[in-house]
Amino acid sequence: MSFYENLKFDANGLIPAIIQDAGNSRVLMMAWMNRASLETTIKTGKTHFWSRSRQKFWMKGETSGHTQQVKDIAFDCDGDCLLIQVEQVGAACHEGYRSCFFRSVEGAGSKIAEPRLQDPGEIYGKPAK
Amino acid sequence: MSFYENLKFDANGLIPAIIQDAGNSRVLMMAWMNRASLETTIKTGKTHFWSRSRQKFWMKGETSGHTQQVKDIAFDCDGDCLLIQVEQVGAACHEGYRSCFFRSVEGAGSKIAEPRLQDPGEIYGKPAK
Repeated sequence: MSFYENLKFDANGLIPAIIQDAGNSRVLMMAWMNRASLETTIKTGKTHFWSRSRQKFWMKGETSGHTQQVKDIAFDCDGDCLLIQVEQVGAACHEGYRSCFFRSVEGAGSKIAEPRLQDPGEIYGKPAK
Repeated sequence: MSFYENLKFDANGLIPAIIQDAGNSRVLMMAWMNRASLETTIKTGKTHFWSRSRQKFWMKGETSGHTQQVKDIAFDCDGDCLLIQVEQVGAACHEGYRSCFFRSVEGAGSKIAEPRLQDPGEIYGKPAK
């Protein structure tokens, strides 16, 4: 049986994908995949997603050079979420942090919980590698 | 500024919450929260969710006893996903595995990637602790 039969894409044909650093287990980001982006992810070994805001297929790192090499793809008991282990090049977050989850709740507000690796201008101000 | 102002709940008033084991960083599950379930999670220190299939507010472990004690709540750069660190009692998965992501893609199929801790009947066949 193909594992695709275990997966449930939502009404828009999408499934959330949690991206985790295969080295230190830090959760880096969450993004959405449709079947075509998952197939391309498996075929190329680089993560590809579907942008809901831009309605566009994209490869992680296509602009920044911060690509993700896939090491493992797991899916949950309900088949409605993916967990993908990757080797991350540079910052996963477009704001220059290693992880998109760089802010934690503190009291009624929030705190920055990790150092910024790069200034966003530094990432996007020059051509993608 | 309240951190709630950084969060974007979707058209149904929901936000996905990734639940991670604070001890070993294993991603345990993903579930959905509305604002009330997030507020109750913060107030009680135990994770609460909104079930889309049952259209019902629920506390993780209310039936199984497998509760989650919250250690940290982070949110991503876009404010549309939560990452919550917890101390998990027993199996997070209703199928008796520590993590709901117990299956990984292997070739065209899948493999079980971790041992089952409990039989589901053992979890749900007796009253919740």
